[in-house]
Amino acid sequence: MKITVLGSGIVGQTISSKLDNLGHQVILGTRNSKETLARLEANRMTGKTFSAWYNDFPNITLQDFGKIPADSDLIINATSGNGTMSALKMLGKSVLTKKVLIDISNPLDFSRGMPPSLSICNTDSLAETIQREYPDTYVVKTLNTMNCSLMVNPSSLTGDHHVFMSGNDNDAKVIVQELLQEIGWKKSSIIDLGGIESARGAEMILPMWLNLFGKFGHGTFNFAINQS
Amino acid sequence: MKITVLGSGIVGQTISSKLDNLGHQVILGTRNSKETLARLEANRMTGKTFSAWYNDFPNITLQDFGKIPADSDLIINATSGNGTMSALKMLGKSVLTKKVLIDISNPLDFSRGMPPSLSICNTDSLAETIQREYPDTYVVKTLNTMNCSLMVNPSSLTGDHHVFMSGNDNDAKVIVQELLQEIGWKKSSIIDLGGIESARGAEMILPMWLNLFGKFGHGTFNFAINQS
Repeated sequence: MKITVLGSGIVGQTISSKLDNLGHQVILGTRNSKETLARLEANRMTGKTFSAWYNDFPNITLQDFGKIPADSDLIINATSGNGTMSALKMLGKSVLTKKVLIDISNPLDFSRGMPPSLSICNTDSLAETIQREYPDTYVVKTLNTMNCSLMVNPSSLTGDHHVFMSGNDNDAKVIVQELLQEIGWKKSSIIDLGGIESARGAEMILPMWLNLFGKFGHGTFNFAINQS
Repeated sequence: MKITVLGSGIVGQTISSKLDNLGHQVILGTRNSKETLARLEANRMTGKTFSAWYNDFPNITLQDFGKIPADSDLIINATSGNGTMSALKMLGKSVLTKKVLIDISNPLDFSRGMPPSLSICNTDSLAETIQREYPDTYVVKTLNTMNCSLMVNPSSLTGDHHVFMSGNDNDAKVIVQELLQEIGWKKSSIIDLGGIESARGAEMILPMWLNLFGKFGHGTFNFAINQS
């Protein structure tokens, strides 16, 4: 598939390289390609600068948000949650219409320091905000409840653990489920929570995740739902 | 121990009968004993009215919130979250001072219909609100992330699953951990999230719980943290 991944941070890089390895044609969207390529800081996961990582993946194409072509089969939002709406605006409605948009971001607000709070929650969610603003896009929330190395390598945990999925369009959820399975998720590990409003629950689980991350000192853990 | 359980609903009854079975001396607090005894509706878990259930437990004493004696060793808040602060006010500071208060309630707001939202969340929590209002009480949040039959019978799920604990006082958390173990929780299943502010995460997990409850059609499931 032609897949556009929005966001050139750790999550965007991790998802992009996985999809590239699986043989998909990846466009990696960023606010400003020139600035992204000039970044000096190393990615915590790869230990590499953006451009060093980018050189390792000759089939991935970096592109400004404003120049994303309209022919992607799928769009994945891996921007930071608070930058999501402005990023999507730069893509424009024509690029997003009738597209499946996988939203894996979280509306974390670091403006009051650590731990962050959520800038949207309880009676709304980021996924619902996207869906309201782009009613002709098929938004599916998933993968936002774990760290990115687990997203693309679920078998790195041995026991059962789960990934949640929320969205209004059943056909879109079938496409997302197939992609999750291609990435390595067992069908039995994917829990369809229901419509896009159920993304509230998936986003509001983040404060617990952040607590556990602080406690364990690593992000290699995930939520599991035990109903045995 | 002398344990006061606040709240005569399903959760309060379930916790009280378990503690009574374990040999503790239980006072069950309610807003108005006379009205509670006159209730006609049956408890969904026991199938009994309050008074029929109460007759089965001759060692449990029903008492108005305003008449709870000050000599309890432990207080458990099992009121509905939105009624908690008014219930505690009826107990009064003298009854709560220097006491361990286990808060198992959730600030669910049903005023906008289903699913409920949280009346406090994100930058605050019910547990923190109690702790601020009663600074000389040792508040420990726990057990609020599952249904009450699982609270008192954790082995009804075969695989691993967890109970969270938040509080500022380490001695109080040791007491709570011992009580959890007495109830049937393995020490390895109890996750200490940290200070009372970590109760935000434990309370904000409720929307996900409610989603899953709606999806599964039953409450016999629990969160597990997989870090294998």
